[in-house]
Amino acid sequence: MLVIGIGAGDPEHLTLQAVKAIGRVDVFFVLDKGEVKGELVRLRRWMVEEYGRGGCRVVEVRDPERDRGAVGYVGAVEEWRSRRAEVFERFIGEELGEGETGGVLVWGDPGVYDSTLAILEEVLGRGVVAFEYEVVPGISSVSALTARHRTSLTQVGRPVHITTGRRLEAEGVGDVDDVVVMLDARCAFGGVSGFDIYWGAYLGTPDEILVSGAVEEVGERIREVRAEARERKGWIMDTYLLRRREPTE
Amino acid sequence: MLVIGIGAGDPEHLTLQAVKAIGRVDVFFVLDKGEVKGELVRLRRWMVEEYGRGGCRVVEVRDPERDRGAVGYVGAVEEWRSRRAEVFERFIGEELGEGETGGVLVWGDPGVYDSTLAILEEVLGRGVVAFEYEVVPGISSVSALTARHRTSLTQVGRPVHITTGRRLEAEGVGDVDDVVVMLDARCAFGGVSGFDIYWGAYLGTPDEILVSGAVEEVGERIREVRAEARERKGWIMDTYLLRRREPTE
Repeated sequence: MLVIGIGAGDPEHLTLQAVKAIGRVDVFFVLDKGEVKGELVRLRRWMVEEYGRGGCRVVEVRDPERDRGAVGYVGAVEEWRSRRAEVFERFIGEELGEGETGGVLVWGDPGVYDSTLAILEEVLGRGVVAFEYEVVPGISSVSALTARHRTSLTQVGRPVHITTGRRLEAEGVGDVDDVVVMLDARCAFGGVSGFDIYWGAYLGTPDEILVSGAVEEVGERIREVRAEARERKGWIMDTYLLRRREPTE
Repeated sequence: MLVIGIGAGDPEHLTLQAVKAIGRVDVFFVLDKGEVKGELVRLRRWMVEEYGRGGCRVVEVRDPERDRGAVGYVGAVEEWRSRRAEVFERFIGEELGEGETGGVLVWGDPGVYDSTLAILEEVLGRGVVAFEYEVVPGISSVSALTARHRTSLTQVGRPVHITTGRRLEAEGVGDVDDVVVMLDARCAFGGVSGFDIYWGAYLGTPDEILVSGAVEEVGERIREVRAEARERKGWIMDTYLLRRREPTE
């Protein structure tokens, strides 16, 4: 199995290593998230047509639904992951012949808030199918965000914290000066002051939107732009960097 | 000016966007860090030969020495950055003709502990030369590290902290469960217990070294391997992820 990071949305984020890896795959495994993210599925399909070897196959499976009403977030994600592990196990057992190579194309970098590696480890742990796997790093949405804003993720000798919208909402920014927030559906930056925000959605795609400025000044605009884009396209992928205006040190 | 992330050491970390950007550059600007990192300069030169347009030029300038004996780390880095800004200003003023494109190739991702963007902002602020610039994201050593260890940077719904060796030494791990440490010349992981470590040096190159395990068990081996490799090659670039074995939540 090859787990291939394909970048944040721009097909040119593909690395030469990823292009080569796509060319080694016999069967691609695509979890179809339903109509709303059809664009993303199409872009992945385009990559396969462009860089896949002749005769490679694509197997599309409907992604199990996550129970979004469940009380515990982590529990719900873990339960969802187990259902996905079953889907992967079936794929590897039924679709991949002896010596064949399966491929999974992952948006961004497979190491950043993506569950594919944990799923593969779970499949291996179940012991029903055996396989080897490699990981090809990709341009994360964090790298895409800071590049598009032409700002550095880190400041000289200083740390950066990467966290989720849920955590920001629950815990605040704490004592760090630089925070990247991902998976934030509720604009948790609203609770923050004294920070600049560098926000980006659909990074690297023709729909890319960038907004930056003091949270107090541009927060409302981001909220509006985000709601409008989400409504229009049916989905949104966005992330942002918060940087304290007056560093604590 | 194009600031182009070229990945962590493997020439195949180059993105299609980076390859295209290299092909747009008229004059590459290389800060030569002296003999010891000659390999790195050679690899960049190879990329220019391979992907640069015909007739492009390479200007090599000796990197100003950083005052490593200075008391304040941040002050010393800022003073160093200003001297580098003068070097960049001269390069842009003297080597780049009207309408020509200059290029800087940056290891890893230009947003992660790299000073090029801050230097360009300083040059613009001085107001002596005027130019536009774009940033091309690259595979950071963080992405390369986690991919090679086939582990995720993040756990479900949990934050990750990216910091420096100096800070880890001074402040400890705090209450986070996942910490990436960069720029650590003194093996600050020695002061940590209850964590697994995923360590990598010369990531993506033929000299790559990977070690992982409980800090208490593999720490000494990393120290030895690191000292031996540094001695043999004259330089080292390494980074690591610390992951608490028993999560706090």
